Amino acid sequence: MERVLDYSRVFTQAIERLHAEGRYRVFIDILRNKGNFPNARCFAGHNGPKPITVWCSNDYLAMGQHPKVIAAMEDALHDVGAGSGGTRNIGGNTHYHIDLEEELADLHGKDAALLFTSGYVSNDATLSTLGKVLPGCIIFSDELNHASMIAGIRNSGCEKHVWRHNDLAHLEELLAEADPDAPKLIAFESVYSMDGDVAPLADICDLADKYNALTYLDEVHAVGMYGPRGGGISDRDGVADRITIIEGTLGKAFGVMGGYIATSRTIIDVIRSYAPGFIFTTSLSPVLVAGTLASVRHLKSSSEERDGQQAAAALLKTMFAEAGLPVMASTTHIVPLMVGDPVRAKRISDILLAEYGIYVQPINYPTVPRGTERLRFTPGPSHTAEMMRELTDALVEIWDRMELRKAA
Amino acid sequence: MERVLDYSRVFTQAIERLHAEGRYRVFIDILRNKGNFPNARCFAGHNGPKPITVWCSNDYLAMGQHPKVIAAMEDALHDVGAGSGGTRNIGGNTHYHIDLEEELADLHGKDAALLFTSGYVSNDATLSTLGKVLPGCIIFSDELNHASMIAGIRNSGCEKHVWRHNDLAHLEELLAEADPDAPKLIAFESVYSMDGDVAPLADICDLADKYNALTYLDEVHAVGMYGPRGGGISDRDGVADRITIIEGTLGKAFGVMGGYIATSRTIIDVIRSYAPGFIFTTSLSPVLVAGTLASVRHLKSSSEERDGQQAAAALLKTMFAEAGLPVMASTTHIVPLMVGDPVRAKRISDILLAEYGIYVQPINYPTVPRGTERLRFTPGPSHTAEMMRELTDALVEIWDRMELRKAA
Ligand SMILES: Cc1ncc(COP(=O)(O)O)c(C=O)c1O
Ligand SMILES: Cc1ncc(COP(=O)(O)O)c(C=O)c1O
Repeated sequence: MERVLDYSRVFTQAIERLHAEGRYRVFIDILRNKGNFPNARCFAGHNGPKPITVWCSNDYLAMGQHPKVIAAMEDALHDVGAGSGGTRNIGGNTHYHIDLEEELADLHGKDAALLFTSGYVSNDATLSTLGKVLPGCIIFSDELNHASMIAGIRNSGCEKHVWRHNDLAHLEELLAEADPDAPKLIAFESVYSMDGDVAPLADICDLADKYNALTYLDEVHAVGMYGPRGGGISDRDGVADRITIIEGTLGKAFGVMGGYIATSRTIIDVIRSYAPGFIFTTSLSPVLVAGTLASVRHLKSSSEERDGQQAAAALLKTMFAEAGLPVMASTTHIVPLMVGDPVRAKRISDILLAEYGIYVQPINYPTVPRGTERLRFTPGPSHTAEMMRELTDALVEIWDRMELRKAA
Repeated sequence: MERVLDYSRVFTQAIERLHAEGRYRVFIDILRNKGNFPNARCFAGHNGPKPITVWCSNDYLAMGQHPKVIAAMEDALHDVGAGSGGTRNIGGNTHYHIDLEEELADLHGKDAALLFTSGYVSNDATLSTLGKVLPGCIIFSDELNHASMIAGIRNSGCEKHVWRHNDLAHLEELLAEADPDAPKLIAFESVYSMDGDVAPLADICDLADKYNALTYLDEVHAVGMYGPRGGGISDRDGVADRITIIEGTLGKAFGVMGGYIATSRTIIDVIRSYAPGFIFTTSLSPVLVAGTLASVRHLKSSSEERDGQQAAAALLKTMFAEAGLPVMASTTHIVPLMVGDPVRAKRISDILLAEYGIYVQPINYPTVPRGTERLRFTPGPSHTAEMMRELTDALVEIWDRMELRKAA
């Protein structure tokens, strides 16, 4: 009898493992309503679209529906068409790209910026290329760094040391042990998006100075939202000039899609010239670039959205705490409720959607460590106190029904 | 004296190497004119925008300006806003995404499809994840495979064997040498975009059957353009059902931006659940998805654009050959002229732009092997015979002026 490898069995087993752990993901089918965020329509499992309120969008400031953004995208669509038609080098470099890169460089007080198709790609492409251009480079990575940074660091082939989350003593210990002559890069985030805590940027810069290390900061969950012009936590803390490379996304607070880095002109030139993930791909659609340009410019001068978001987050945290819900210790706009189990987290989310028309996605492994499964709420300037009341009451009812432990 | 590593010197040297080789890239600054392709405006080095004709766009069928595509994008923009606001799992799964995945699965006669932010990411994420889900997998890769496949294969950590371009005897030799029980994957393209030749798909499928290997086909430069419904070369050759995974882009013939794979439902479920490059990134903007949906649907039933493109390519090849220009042996819509030197290729391109208002990008290393630098023309349905006459005459004049060798 011939032994023939059965591929489909291998694939099926991979899926069965997810079901067994209760973390098989079902994508909920929605359409948001422009002009009416956070309201949306949900398709799956209902007869026709059903109205819902979205509590887990990363379009944090609702800029994805801002009239200036929509108008800029419409203009670009009619002026130049849908796609760029090429890579940045071969026909896909539009005037919009150049303008947005200048705007982002200015936002962070840097010489230059470079656009990528996503924040994920900007992290992966930049970190993997930096590691290759700096022979022998050692990368120091916060243990809670995002999957895209982890991918970039792995793909760089560099020696990597992981420091305990936001633990500077541990970071210094690792820096001190390393070869003093080796190139070094410290990679970290400003706002950690699943917990809502913030890194001590200035202290990390002090260590970088002491050990002659470059710094790479992911501000994906901070750009647009912190600092007087929306330059992120490095803007708020006044340390942007001490960070070598600042990375951000166009897809969260700016409301569109894409990613970027801002740094010195020389480093931009190196990444632009050597990173396969930048070189060999169709550039961002000019429609997206035009929309982001409007969004970044607006948020440089308007603080209304930022203030509204901070007020909403403070109010929701208070309501959750007063209701005895296990709200986690976030110092930012992110409001996570700990559940600690993937099956229960999904069940709460299912009840919220089916019975209350409230959409919040359960967050499970590998997005967060096993045993820390949670619900993650992102209140923004368009979430009203009344919506928060409804949400809190619904959660209290479900917590009681499922006999979940309340906070002290 | 302290020895301190000077990072900026390392970065500057990396850039100097590019200048020394004559392959430092300058991105030309353009805006295309919707409703008037292939005409565009060029900004750099001129007083105000100067009109140009673009000959190197990968918006091959000018779908980026098609009224149905523009209308669909405008509708989506006004209905749901600019960005998706989340990853596919967390709030970023819109009804448009689901519809487009069904449309693409149907296009290739597959169970299911999965969208990515780009064709690059679809290759990188899928190949690297497949390699991890199939322990001990050996990947067989055509030597001219695209950088994004090379990245995915490297990131999979699998053993890799490179077969000489389109050389089936060599592929079989490598397959025969490998452990018969090991999982195997053959990765290749249909249309190779820098030469314009085509892989023998059916013969590769025969080998895959014989050696029980999976097949992974990049149809990025063929979808929309070949086959009665635009399903690519696998559609034209009637072998789509024999290919395990078909990969494509939304950014070339479909005129927008994004990438996808089409395959069995189980493999889609595996990639969707395990690939970090799919999971941890904001999903495609619904505006892009809506535009592509209109584009794919249109090209399923209309062959006018495909016929126009093939006629234009045939005419331009004839004109180049009759003028004695070194046109390469392409069997597709791609029309490359061999130059063989990066400095000369750039000089020809610079003269065309400055003196003739003709834009074609020089193609140099690492996009093509050193010594095979070329100009690559992509005539489409909107390029007229008159434009081709002007282009050919300009090239002949420059070839004479620079004393370049003509074809026999
Ligand atoms: C910390 C962090 N970095 C990077 C990314 C990737 O950004 P993008 O969604 O633009 O790919 C994300 C989330 O998606 C993130 O949470
Ligand atoms: C063969 C091939 N595969 C994949 C890609 C990447 O597709 P995308 O531009 O959508 O990232 C390209 C070109 O960009 C390509 O030429």
